[in-house]
Amino acid sequence: MQIGAIEAGGTKFICGIGNEKGEIKDQISFPTEEPERTLEQALEYFRDKSVEAIGIGSFGPINLDHFSPGYGHVTTTPKPGWTGFDFIGYIKRAYPVPIGFDTDVNAAVFGEAKWGAAKGLDSCVYYTIGTGVGVGVYTEGKLVHGLVHPEGGHVMIRRHSEDSFGGLCPYHGDCLEGMASGPAIEKRWGVKGSELPGDHKAWEMEAYYLAQAISGVILLLSPKKVILGGGVMHQKQLFPLIRKGVAHNLNGYVASPAILDDIDHYIVPPALGDNAGLCGALALGIEAAGQ
Amino acid sequence: MQIGAIEAGGTKFICGIGNEKGEIKDQISFPTEEPERTLEQALEYFRDKSVEAIGIGSFGPINLDHFSPGYGHVTTTPKPGWTGFDFIGYIKRAYPVPIGFDTDVNAAVFGEAKWGAAKGLDSCVYYTIGTGVGVGVYTEGKLVHGLVHPEGGHVMIRRHSEDSFGGLCPYHGDCLEGMASGPAIEKRWGVKGSELPGDHKAWEMEAYYLAQAISGVILLLSPKKVILGGGVMHQKQLFPLIRKGVAHNLNGYVASPAILDDIDHYIVPPALGDNAGLCGALALGIEAAGQ
Repeated sequence: MQIGAIEAGGTKFICGIGNEKGEIKDQISFPTEEPERTLEQALEYFRDKSVEAIGIGSFGPINLDHFSPGYGHVTTTPKPGWTGFDFIGYIKRAYPVPIGFDTDVNAAVFGEAKWGAAKGLDSCVYYTIGTGVGVGVYTEGKLVHGLVHPEGGHVMIRRHSEDSFGGLCPYHGDCLEGMASGPAIEKRWGVKGSELPGDHKAWEMEAYYLAQAISGVILLLSPKKVILGGGVMHQKQLFPLIRKGVAHNLNGYVASPAILDDIDHYIVPPALGDNAGLCGALALGIEAAGQ
Repeated sequence: MQIGAIEAGGTKFICGIGNEKGEIKDQISFPTEEPERTLEQALEYFRDKSVEAIGIGSFGPINLDHFSPGYGHVTTTPKPGWTGFDFIGYIKRAYPVPIGFDTDVNAAVFGEAKWGAAKGLDSCVYYTIGTGVGVGVYTEGKLVHGLVHPEGGHVMIRRHSEDSFGGLCPYHGDCLEGMASGPAIEKRWGVKGSELPGDHKAWEMEAYYLAQAISGVILLLSPKKVILGGGVMHQKQLFPLIRKGVAHNLNGYVASPAILDDIDHYIVPPALGDNAGLCGALALGIEAAGQ
């Protein structure tokens, strides 16, 4: 079985080919430009690959309502040309195969649930902390969509007592994304996070915010694994700080050994590393092929 | 089909009989005392009813892990005699029929999804705001359990700028339950909420806290309906205040007409009223009968 996978990110497209075991056999990447220009490169890549299905994990917001005429379209985005673009339709005209389509973070959480850090579990959440903060939710063996799709990067959080930064989110100011995204770190401290030393105050503050959001998701959904990826999480010193913050916030209330005794294996990086998104798109393609 | 239903609350047990249409034909209630004493009354009630299955929505925390030897037990509770009590086992020895078992709030959300305010929808959340704050989550057509079960009443919230009350939660102090439960209202203002006038400052503050939590759940799960029940929500003036707070918090970000244009039908009281819990227990019994 040969399945196509597209990780459609806001700045970069990755296209690949894989099989039903989650093995990516080949991949390329190119910058995200205007939709036709970008997708022509994707179509060209799949030209000689005989794909039986294609899975797409896309930046958003996107329309995932199967009963809507706009299903498979990008909805509103500042990205030139993409607002209202019929993503699935464009692919389908060239390759009339089954197409799986979901958000980039839902793809990533799906990949991790199938082959990664949450393999064999029926629930997990995936945070990507980078240019923005995104959350994919997998629970009771299903990806969560609901009315639109999860946008858990925008939850309200309590301010750190020493933080006077106003927040960057154009909608909510000092929501999680506004305070804890990569650009927020850069704006607050005047340099990129990657240039700050590992013991800088910035990381304690970052962990404080992420631990709050993660504590909230644990209380609300009781996920069996919490997976943290994205550029900011390349700062590995964040993991112990976040685990400590979550344990402090929950204060023993969620009485599960996974949290009380083994939090080091409960809040973890993606096992698929930076391939979580592409593997997830592959998983979406496999699922579409089976339907 | 004759199905038994038990709404096992912390202060009151309600037992009833119903059918697969969600019609409750008969019910009784009695105070929650020590487990044997309480359950003997339930068993006596079902004695001549020829039930084919029994559904139970129980106060918690309870063990819902089917793979655990403690499945169906109450775990740890200050309630005398209930810690470690084998709830399902006790019922099953008297009535060896299929038994559905879940939290009281999951039962309520399930009842509302089957026959109430979220009928026909595949996702909704149910908050009960009373002695405590509980949350039941139904998403992609399934009740959410995860590692333990949702305990979304304990999420962290931002303090209202005029609120100096310390919060009542023994675990988290000023979490949602600590600040917005019925006892928190009574402690903060010195009188029961039901004795405060409808335009008292207390309700603006209460709505402020609930709107925060609800905004968070909308961002994280994008539920198709938000249902608010429990004693505190008998204060109907809270609904418009909460809707306004949620719209303010989201600030147009979740671009769904259900929220942007029709929030009055999106954040609603339970359609089953105070019967949501018992109807939900009935739904759990029906589901168990079908398995």
